[in-house]
Amino acid sequence: MFDARIRSENLRELVEVIGTLVDEAKFTFTKDELTTKAVDPAHVAMVELVVSKNAFEKYKSDDLELGIHLDKLRSILKLTKPGDEVSLHYDDEKNRLVIQVGNITRTMSLVDTAGMSEPKVHKLNLPASVSIKVQELTQGIKASESISDHLALVITPDGFEMSSEAESDSTHLKVPKEALTELKCKENVRSLFPLDYFTNMVKAASSADTVTMHLGTDFPVKLEFSIAQGHGNVKYLLAPRIETK
Amino acid sequence: MFDARIRSENLRELVEVIGTLVDEAKFTFTKDELTTKAVDPAHVAMVELVVSKNAFEKYKSDDLELGIHLDKLRSILKLTKPGDEVSLHYDDEKNRLVIQVGNITRTMSLVDTAGMSEPKVHKLNLPASVSIKVQELTQGIKASESISDHLALVITPDGFEMSSEAESDSTHLKVPKEALTELKCKENVRSLFPLDYFTNMVKAASSADTVTMHLGTDFPVKLEFSIAQGHGNVKYLLAPRIETK
Amino acid sequence: MFDARIRSENLRELVEVIGTLVDEAKFTFTKDELTTKAVDPAHVAMVELVVSKNAFEKYKSDDLELGIHLDKLRSILKLTKPGDEVSLHYDDEKNRLVIQVGNITRTMSLVDTAGMSEPKVHKLNLPASVSIKVQELTQGIKASESISDHLALVITPDGFEMSSEAESDSTHLKVPKEALTELKCKENVRSLFPLDYFTNMVKAASSADTVTMHLGTDFPVKLEFSIAQGHGNVKYLLAPRIETK
Repeated sequence: MFDARIRSENLRELVEVIGTLVDEAKFTFTKDELTTKAVDPAHVAMVELVVSKNAFEKYKSDDLELGIHLDKLRSILKLTKPGDEVSLHYDDEKNRLVIQVGNITRTMSLVDTAGMSEPKVHKLNLPASVSIKVQELTQGIKASESISDHLALVITPDGFEMSSEAESDSTHLKVPKEALTELKCKENVRSLFPLDYFTNMVKAASSADTVTMHLGTDFPVKLEFSIAQGHGNVKYLLAPRIETK
Repeated sequence: MFDARIRSENLRELVEVIGTLVDEAKFTFTKDELTTKAVDPAHVAMVELVVSKNAFEKYKSDDLELGIHLDKLRSILKLTKPGDEVSLHYDDEKNRLVIQVGNITRTMSLVDTAGMSEPKVHKLNLPASVSIKVQELTQGIKASESISDHLALVITPDGFEMSSEAESDSTHLKVPKEALTELKCKENVRSLFPLDYFTNMVKAASSADTVTMHLGTDFPVKLEFSIAQGHGNVKYLLAPRIETK
Repeated sequence: MFDARIRSENLRELVEVIGTLVDEAKFTFTKDELTTKAVDPAHVAMVELVVSKNAFEKYKSDDLELGIHLDKLRSILKLTKPGDEVSLHYDDEKNRLVIQVGNITRTMSLVDTAGMSEPKVHKLNLPASVSIKVQELTQGIKASESISDHLALVITPDGFEMSSEAESDSTHLKVPKEALTELKCKENVRSLFPLDYFTNMVKAASSADTVTMHLGTDFPVKLEFSIAQGHGNVKYLLAPRIETK
């Protein structure tokens, strides 16, 4: 049994956070929360999402696993405006999801979850971290776009840096310690990342004001932030690229 | 002789209503009104438009038939903003239309109407009808877009329904009797229509608040609405598709 | 030495005025002003730009020539909003431009100016001129777009005209003497121009309220206008086309 009602803006955040990496995903429901873990097809990035039942206007569920096509949820979100509520109901007889928005009822077939492997999350010991405004990351990304397909993330005891380099052109964003909400760093760390993946993750974080970034040297970066007014928690992991200089 | 002046927003409504089905059309002017009948090239849909001289700021005409390229009128409308007036004058010596907007004079060759056949409008006896907000139809169309190329329109004694079905997905809009301006129905009627045509017709009706829809079972649907502050009347006919279930 | 700070909207105007004709340009700095002359690759149009140091918030320069990629400046402008200031600094050791916007530092390689020839500006004796609202030119251009790839500019003792003609369609803009800020004309002059170039020039003039146009018969047209709150002066020259009637 799964029977819930959620405000469209919360559903949208949830869908975008997952949908930036995969087309379909396994959603695991328990009586208190919903969780999803997914890896993108190229195995470059991972997302782990936990949404408490408090993100919903109404939430009742047994233990349940549903394979959901994210594009189908997106097509329903197009029918809504902020403030609208979306009802979701699992029809276990016909194994499908029944969704209601206003006068519209949408019936949706599910994806077989048998073939969906659960990504394994390795414990990572990332030595440095910052809490930073999403908006700063967005500016750094925009500046990098015209320079390179990669960008380096750097944390020093003085602040956070983001840079991109081409033959003779470069761009560099420096956010000093004082402009950061939090900074934990004993010694400089630096890793290089693919710009496109990082851009999509930061875009999906745009409804959060601040993200926490955990960084090492030549290690994956971990981005953590809240969605659904703090009732949902998102963790992204992005694999580093090899620096050639 | 044809000499008229019209507000750009009225001209735009008039052009869009016809232009959604055909590229060029024969406009028939009399001293009191202008009428157009047109069938789309695939003979799937028909439009009949009657615009009273009261839709114009100034209107003087003999009995006259002009073949007009709708794209040329659209290019003139791009020069206007709401409230602007457009003057139209038929130069019978050179057989062309002379149009003025502000400081700009546009001379336009006409299309030979000899090859344009007048569509024959058969009397249709459609047993059920509703008057419904355009906005409800727009929601139903948006919901159907991700499902199928067709949609079914249904009238029952309880209300109006719109649905679209694919293999295992479906969408269903139900507007109950109470939310309709008018409902005439003794027994259920249902027909299937091509989504693209229906979408274009409803888009052309967007300046009207409400449309009246006449429906039968496996019969064409007739949409009727007003344009130009009630001084113009539009009737669309759309042929049904064969339902395979 | 070159060290300056400028508001982003002034830099944008400056970049667009040049960038509409060329991808890269030689900027010549002196202690009081910056000048650029450029010809488009097809040698159809020319621009001459002079910007006083008063267009800058801060301006210090020796005599200096820098070859600048305009697209790189555009990518920096994307990081700004109106009111933001952009700092520009020439690093003569590494021969590159260092630009700062907020927390971002952008390093930019320069283009070798050795291969860039200075266009020679011939003295032209253009007998007629008008000062006209940019907006009128924009309307005339929009009206011409659906008709032809060329447009004729005409000045008569009575006013300014702009027209475009195809087989049996035509468009004509007439701005009477009274609606012009200034009119100097003893006898009618008329030249034909390529619509695309003229459109781009007028677009680049959109921040100016009024442009002055100097015209002859089968002569280039000269457009003159101000940018950067009057601290910059732009002169465009556009070669005429041969009229076939």
